[in-house]
Amino acid sequence: MSEEQRHRVVVVGGGFGGLNVTKALAHADVDVTVVDRTNHHLFQPLLYQVAAGILPPGLIAPALRGVIRKQKNARALLAEVTDLDLDAHVVRASGPDGRPLELPYDTLVVAGGATHSYFGRDEFARYAPGMKTVEDARHLRDQILLAFEMAELATDPQERAEWLTFVVIGAGPTGVELVGQVAELAHTVLPQDYRAVDTHEARILLLEGAGAVVPPFAPKLQRYTQGRLEAMGVEVRLHSLAVGMDGESVTLKGPDGEETIRTRTRIWAAGVQASPLAAQLAERTGAGTDRAGRIEVNPDCTVPGRPEVFAIGDMVSLDGLPGVAQPAMQEGKYVGKLIKARLAGDERTAPFHYFDKGSMATIGHRAAVADAFGMRFTGVLGYTMWGFVHVLYLIGWGNRLGTVYTWARALTFSHSRGHRIITFEQAHERAFRGPGPVEAPVRGPSRAG
Amino acid sequence: MSEEQRHRVVVVGGGFGGLNVTKALAHADVDVTVVDRTNHHLFQPLLYQVAAGILPPGLIAPALRGVIRKQKNARALLAEVTDLDLDAHVVRASGPDGRPLELPYDTLVVAGGATHSYFGRDEFARYAPGMKTVEDARHLRDQILLAFEMAELATDPQERAEWLTFVVIGAGPTGVELVGQVAELAHTVLPQDYRAVDTHEARILLLEGAGAVVPPFAPKLQRYTQGRLEAMGVEVRLHSLAVGMDGESVTLKGPDGEETIRTRTRIWAAGVQASPLAAQLAERTGAGTDRAGRIEVNPDCTVPGRPEVFAIGDMVSLDGLPGVAQPAMQEGKYVGKLIKARLAGDERTAPFHYFDKGSMATIGHRAAVADAFGMRFTGVLGYTMWGFVHVLYLIGWGNRLGTVYTWARALTFSHSRGHRIITFEQAHERAFRGPGPVEAPVRGPSRAG
Repeated sequence: MSEEQRHRVVVVGGGFGGLNVTKALAHADVDVTVVDRTNHHLFQPLLYQVAAGILPPGLIAPALRGVIRKQKNARALLAEVTDLDLDAHVVRASGPDGRPLELPYDTLVVAGGATHSYFGRDEFARYAPGMKTVEDARHLRDQILLAFEMAELATDPQERAEWLTFVVIGAGPTGVELVGQVAELAHTVLPQDYRAVDTHEARILLLEGAGAVVPPFAPKLQRYTQGRLEAMGVEVRLHSLAVGMDGESVTLKGPDGEETIRTRTRIWAAGVQASPLAAQLAERTGAGTDRAGRIEVNPDCTVPGRPEVFAIGDMVSLDGLPGVAQPAMQEGKYVGKLIKARLAGDERTAPFHYFDKGSMATIGHRAAVADAFGMRFTGVLGYTMWGFVHVLYLIGWGNRLGTVYTWARALTFSHSRGHRIITFEQAHERAFRGPGPVEAPVRGPSRAG
Repeated sequence: MSEEQRHRVVVVGGGFGGLNVTKALAHADVDVTVVDRTNHHLFQPLLYQVAAGILPPGLIAPALRGVIRKQKNARALLAEVTDLDLDAHVVRASGPDGRPLELPYDTLVVAGGATHSYFGRDEFARYAPGMKTVEDARHLRDQILLAFEMAELATDPQERAEWLTFVVIGAGPTGVELVGQVAELAHTVLPQDYRAVDTHEARILLLEGAGAVVPPFAPKLQRYTQGRLEAMGVEVRLHSLAVGMDGESVTLKGPDGEETIRTRTRIWAAGVQASPLAAQLAERTGAGTDRAGRIEVNPDCTVPGRPEVFAIGDMVSLDGLPGVAQPAMQEGKYVGKLIKARLAGDERTAPFHYFDKGSMATIGHRAAVADAFGMRFTGVLGYTMWGFVHVLYLIGWGNRLGTVYTWARALTFSHSRGHRIITFEQAHERAFRGPGPVEAPVRGPSRAG
């Protein structure tokens, strides 16, 4: 251990931001410590496919220490960061068993990511789980699959209809991707599997507060997406907000007033909120935060008054960049280079410049919209592009090939959702919450970023 | 629904026994209802590979209703059987939310499987989890991987050594397969991944009460297996029983007296016990049970005095057959044929005849022992045979190809254990049990059989 001599970089979070900083420092004369509350690097853009039973989580969530195993100047620690002591230059964390850890740093990079936001209605968490972590995605998968199982067991038609009603709240890319998967399950994958229930009867709603689905996309792509979803049997409700919910219903406020929809399954895809570490950093540096709790950073991703402290990714407000993978990855690479340059005595700090590679979202399993390099793609062409790009960004050829194989299987055999496991404990736990199925606790610092 | 008119067969359990009965009735004029407390058919012989992080559970646990989706005379229900009312000809069950279900039958097949047995020391369950279900395997995987994470965090050498000590109790095929995987993880897969810890230092013990490992195999294969394990760095302790344990140690009684080994990870692979449904059936029919709680059935797999009630698989004592897949599968097929013959008016009941296809076990990931058709195979040849046979028995070409791909990947890249996810909640839950990591509750009726 030469930690005493070498420049110590502590990276908080092993998501897109944290991992890219770490890798950018591979050949630098530093010791890097990445702290994450899970043991894996999650490729979040494909997480909805875990919730849909298509991909096993392992393919999109390789062990972080496996990813950096050849980078001998980096180590990974499984712990939750609790305190950023900027004066003492120490990160304090807590191991899985609560043991305290102290990580002194010379340079600190905070990439704590974001979690769901219920816009102050935290009681919704119990009724409408969101999807940020592997555990969230597994919960959603259990909940969606269990709804069909419960419908098959139900003898009361009203109860059965409630189990067959799915409401996705929020029509951003994640909400669109999730609702598309629910529609495919109900209308394509599962019909042959059930006897008492005709899964075609499932009612699937998508609520969006704005006036269009996938708000960041061009109007043409928004219209295409909405049309595709409606063709798949999804009821799209624009200008509609969820204003109340309980275990058996959701109340929405739309253009025509309030309406209560009886449903046992609600999925939250409406809002995100920065890791609490953003607020902690802001408080200790005097930086501002935006509505989503993201900290405003300098153009070089440092925080005010602390040139040795960087913040990047979903927990950061910078140039209005969206909380998706690309800005986090590019910020990570940028900060890695900046640290190397500084160590080489180069104190110039050219500000971070984002290169927009475009946006994409899938609708069901055979169509997508892509908006890249000034061009717009839809349908199978969009889907092919989407698939190509996403596989390329996965880590390791083993995971890429495994994903391609699994997709080929799912596309060839429309019934093939290979990962549909519900264990007894899960079924029991979910269903015994009775009406309100999954409890999604509001969490501490999340890991992406 | 023509349930009123057609002969109703209720199958309890969707394991090897239950699934094979169901499939054998595919073209019979009956209505089959399979009840299982999970939604999947588990291929238990490969479950240890889930615990080792090699296979994702989906490949070996397809949704039961997916497996029988084309068999229109069969349906699957997710519920736990609580009562076999043989006089009323009704199976009573409880849905995931506790709702009562009544399933009237004309013919009943009980294939409730088995669960672990702690030989009356149920307090061991908390400290030494076993592996019968997908959930068990995930728990074991979490526990094994978390032990290495905790070792990396530990600063006290004694504590670190405890986290790096693994004790597998029971050297039957499952114990041997599990201990082989732990040794491969420690000595081949993980060394490059850790910085503070040298995983080569892991101490891995295998306890066996009998005088040889894999007791059902021929002495030559037993010696080979033990030699292989020792070459992989496993300490094999024969004539040794676990007589006590707590969160940080296990006490064994061996030829040289008692010894206490400091360890944070114990895995139970020593005993099985029939589903409580076996005792219920025995009590209601006057049948005997053996030491493992298995019910003694007639040569045609019926229970005494109830020609319309069959019991098969791991919960049954018949001709001294072992509680493995082959007897359960063959009994299932036999009973299916018998039911069809009876419906055709053929009341002859040739007794069940078992065709022994041999036994196999793997040791680590490149060697196996196989004892089949009077021949014995070891090493890579045994491993190839083992792999071929196991892939063949998996359900669906998609799962077979997926498994072959995953194995090829794991064999080519020795670091490739693709499914190593520990979520924050899991880490927290396990580690906060502190010393005694996983609580494995003693369960109700298990599902295999």
